[in-house]
Amino acid sequence: MFQSFDSAGDPSVGKPRTALLRQWLKENGLDGFIVPRADEHQGEYVAPRSNRLRWLTGFSGSAGVAIVLGKSAYVFVDGRYTLQVRDEVDLGIFSIESLIDNPPAAWIRENLPTGARLGFDPWLHTMGDVKALSASAEEVGAVLVPLARNPIDAIWEDQPDAPLAPVEIHPEALAGELAKDKLKRLAAAIDDEGATHAILTDPSSLAWAFNIRGGDVPHTPLALGFAILAADGSHAVFMDKRKLGRTEEAYLTQFADIKAPGKLEDAVAALAKSGARIALDPVLAADRLRALIEDNGGTVVSAPDPARLPRATKNSAEISGSRAAHRRDGAAVAKLLCWLDRQEPGKLDEIAVVTRLEECRRQTGEETQMPLRDVSFDTISGAGPNGAIMHYRVSRATSRVLGDGELFLLDSGAQYQDGTTDITRTMPVGKPTEEMRERFTLVLKGMIGISIARFPAGTRGADIDAMARMALWKHGLDYAHGTGHGVGSYLAVHEGPQRIAKTGMEKLLPGMILSNEPGYYKEGHYGIRLENLILVTQAAAIPGGDIAMHGFETLTLAPFDQRLLRADLLTREELDWLNAYHARVLAEIGPMLDGETLAWLEQATAPIV
Amino acid sequence: MFQSFDSAGDPSVGKPRTALLRQWLKENGLDGFIVPRADEHQGEYVAPRSNRLRWLTGFSGSAGVAIVLGKSAYVFVDGRYTLQVRDEVDLGIFSIESLIDNPPAAWIRENLPTGARLGFDPWLHTMGDVKALSASAEEVGAVLVPLARNPIDAIWEDQPDAPLAPVEIHPEALAGELAKDKLKRLAAAIDDEGATHAILTDPSSLAWAFNIRGGDVPHTPLALGFAILAADGSHAVFMDKRKLGRTEEAYLTQFADIKAPGKLEDAVAALAKSGARIALDPVLAADRLRALIEDNGGTVVSAPDPARLPRATKNSAEISGSRAAHRRDGAAVAKLLCWLDRQEPGKLDEIAVVTRLEECRRQTGEETQMPLRDVSFDTISGAGPNGAIMHYRVSRATSRVLGDGELFLLDSGAQYQDGTTDITRTMPVGKPTEEMRERFTLVLKGMIGISIARFPAGTRGADIDAMARMALWKHGLDYAHGTGHGVGSYLAVHEGPQRIAKTGMEKLLPGMILSNEPGYYKEGHYGIRLENLILVTQAAAIPGGDIAMHGFETLTLAPFDQRLLRADLLTREELDWLNAYHARVLAEIGPMLDGETLAWLEQATAPIV
Repeated sequence: MFQSFDSAGDPSVGKPRTALLRQWLKENGLDGFIVPRADEHQGEYVAPRSNRLRWLTGFSGSAGVAIVLGKSAYVFVDGRYTLQVRDEVDLGIFSIESLIDNPPAAWIRENLPTGARLGFDPWLHTMGDVKALSASAEEVGAVLVPLARNPIDAIWEDQPDAPLAPVEIHPEALAGELAKDKLKRLAAAIDDEGATHAILTDPSSLAWAFNIRGGDVPHTPLALGFAILAADGSHAVFMDKRKLGRTEEAYLTQFADIKAPGKLEDAVAALAKSGARIALDPVLAADRLRALIEDNGGTVVSAPDPARLPRATKNSAEISGSRAAHRRDGAAVAKLLCWLDRQEPGKLDEIAVVTRLEECRRQTGEETQMPLRDVSFDTISGAGPNGAIMHYRVSRATSRVLGDGELFLLDSGAQYQDGTTDITRTMPVGKPTEEMRERFTLVLKGMIGISIARFPAGTRGADIDAMARMALWKHGLDYAHGTGHGVGSYLAVHEGPQRIAKTGMEKLLPGMILSNEPGYYKEGHYGIRLENLILVTQAAAIPGGDIAMHGFETLTLAPFDQRLLRADLLTREELDWLNAYHARVLAEIGPMLDGETLAWLEQATAPIV
Repeated sequence: MFQSFDSAGDPSVGKPRTALLRQWLKENGLDGFIVPRADEHQGEYVAPRSNRLRWLTGFSGSAGVAIVLGKSAYVFVDGRYTLQVRDEVDLGIFSIESLIDNPPAAWIRENLPTGARLGFDPWLHTMGDVKALSASAEEVGAVLVPLARNPIDAIWEDQPDAPLAPVEIHPEALAGELAKDKLKRLAAAIDDEGATHAILTDPSSLAWAFNIRGGDVPHTPLALGFAILAADGSHAVFMDKRKLGRTEEAYLTQFADIKAPGKLEDAVAALAKSGARIALDPVLAADRLRALIEDNGGTVVSAPDPARLPRATKNSAEISGSRAAHRRDGAAVAKLLCWLDRQEPGKLDEIAVVTRLEECRRQTGEETQMPLRDVSFDTISGAGPNGAIMHYRVSRATSRVLGDGELFLLDSGAQYQDGTTDITRTMPVGKPTEEMRERFTLVLKGMIGISIARFPAGTRGADIDAMARMALWKHGLDYAHGTGHGVGSYLAVHEGPQRIAKTGMEKLLPGMILSNEPGYYKEGHYGIRLENLILVTQAAAIPGGDIAMHGFETLTLAPFDQRLLRADLLTREELDWLNAYHARVLAEIGPMLDGETLAWLEQATAPIV
């Protein structure tokens, strides 16, 4: 299994470990320390060695910060984790704060004592973070102290080593562009920004630019490392050579000097001393890099990661790969759904579905000679009230039986070498209520609204987010998350900068892959989410129109459960879309199925008249 | 008539007047001067004395900037005026630049010679403007020189005096809140911002806060002036006392010291010297005020005009007033439309319609004892291709006959003491084409989409703008303007901060009045625009829903021309809205009409089955 069902949190660790930390702080003349969830790369997944927040507090969520002072300690989490954190940390040690309403920078302004010296690890906070934190500390007459060594690393006795998963070359047939050509484009972009160099700190960008993949963190095929790209083409990659086989090392050496990660600071300092103008992305780059450049006489050029838009706009090979991955994944999901349909209510639990789904994916991957490399995130398998927990992670402690009359929400994804998938379907267990059917249909209307949207060049995700909500809003309903996130190409399942949300200020460009996943959550009762991945298409003329319009091609291929549908609530246009989609699902994944599953799919995709 | 049909521009003036200006600049050691359209208050309408741009260049548009250097001169205009400016200025003297793609700050960076001394009047540019302009000048090694006296005023021999229209008290029955209570709220808001004072530079805010109206600029009942509000309640108004009758002076003196406009600089300097923290709105306040405060040891608190949100969220008296104004205005528009319907194609010109419409409004105002005070802007009366010019202003030179088979677009508004209106309808002259009917219906679908939207608290105008465009987008069509602007209460017809547009980042709050005006423009052929004013309603529970939702109440009451409608393109929900709206129009304005007009209205609002 690529997923564990252990309870990841542990409230017993906080007491002894904060005591150790406080001892260290005292010995080092500090009044407190900030412990973020992030590693040096600010990614969603971190290697075990970097989960200092989990080690110190017991909290296992994917986002959060702790602040430990001499006599008090705080864990900051967002709305996803307000319940979970209370099970996972010792509330006698930690007070809980809201990462959104009262984030550390605001908290410091209200709570940090005048004169306090608050330590932080400048490799784990971005330039933007540190700017905000420092401004707050300054307001109250306190000081933020960058530390040369992270105190957690000093006191964590059995801290795991840095991961050393082997690096593989991502083949040109799937990448669609040679690394040398990508690097030329990036060098030109760096020059256009008025910089001499750019530091890639995001391993997704490193992977994309050099056409490599790795396995250093869960569920995302990243090889942790940094690169310094130069406008003149003299690039350097900072990565432990033990991750590279002979072929991979020879491959990478064509484009860049390969240096040990420990040499990065010296290399940046040397460039800065030579007067380099080095581009850093203020929302991604560690503040340590900024300081190194500025302290050594270089110039920081604040600019977005030069790889983020080229990476986000997939080329035709990546798009073909994604289509193939989605056919394969759709066939696997159809097998699961067919099997699920045959089970009696009250017999199966959430974990059994996750296990079976991974089997379906493995089997289909083997049949199609494109094996399942990983799940793209821990499957969200939520029966009844668990479905209403938006980022639910099933463990043995929480796994619930799929009970008669409940809804079951299944949100999962796969990593295949040709593409990353992410799909959510919601199914009835036994007979659904009329309320469930109405709300399922309203969510579906929103999902279809995005699917059929056309829009002119320049439209941003923020401009269309409400199209997925209009139908719910008219019924006094909404969902408390964005409508869509960007998705990588055999990379991170949550990839920026594109998103469909109120905060989605990035233009939607052809080739971007996004999720389209409106939902509805009735706390304590059930959750509904329907998710397809969609591809922004090239602007195309519309007969009789003036302006070529972008649109979306739906990539995900799996039926929506018609037992939950109230077709009378759909417009003609919506119904036509649904019937055409189901016909396409049958045509594209039907040939990968047989027997019982094919018969099931034919019935599940039957047109509604 | 409140509107003139003279051609406002004059290309003959540029040559002699730029020569005069250049002479002055030479004598004063300057290499150039910037002439914006704005006055000290940054409003849309300026008094004749302040239209220095028109005087110097001949250009009569409502937005623009000129830069005059020793041997070259430039006029910057936006897309609305690219055609008009070529008729109105001497192209031998002025080059035309885009105010949007290459605004003065960008232009300076590319074009201003190193070492140049470019003068500007710091009363006519906002803090934000000057920051951008100075940064650009600095980049090229040039200097922006603030001038104590505007050179245009020095060379403009017959420059009109400042306007002295009488001020009137806006009655409490219409304002809905006493000035003393408003001023208390504002004083508290200033204190909350950490300021001791705020300078109101926007005459709309002055009018709102003190419940006064005036007549210093066209079409908006403003009394030009400034106020310094103090957190401790010791307010001062800077306004020429000749505008105040005895009653008005006694009224205002209750709340504030009344001082001559010429005393403002001294007063601000004195406050600054005493260490005041003075709030200025960076997008509204003249840079001169910032400099006065900073040069005299005070502190500028950069904060939005404290009156802008209280003014934007209308109270129940203002809402009642607006409803009454819209019934009256709807009756006037119905009279016009009935009359228009009786005319033969090819007989009437655009000016005749404008004239008749003003007569209808005057007559209805008299009948209802709430006389027409002004039109709220120059009526846009566009037949055939003139309708495709988004901000068309009809003059004797351009007035076109309403020809058979054309569309006619009529966008107009009124100022009554109880409310400001703004309405657009599009009518066929003779028989419309199928294309016209289809596109009219798509525009109507967008307008209905906004009308029936429900949305949760926190929704911004930007979030719903696309709802007005979705139907057009699907047909490859769009319009190049925002969907809606804020509207004042017997104040400016274009009022911030609320708007429905990609740039509308302000939350929609109950009581805000906005326009809802999607359109479609086929250049050289016809224009379609449909506009109602709408009111953001209090969030209300929806049966069966979880969240109280805001929505819109439509204020404007006049039929949409059914000859242009393709009912088969409407959804059931849209058709239901249209029929209900027409029934309401008949019920609310029918009682104000009789005879032929009432019969016409009954037919125009007949339900579609």
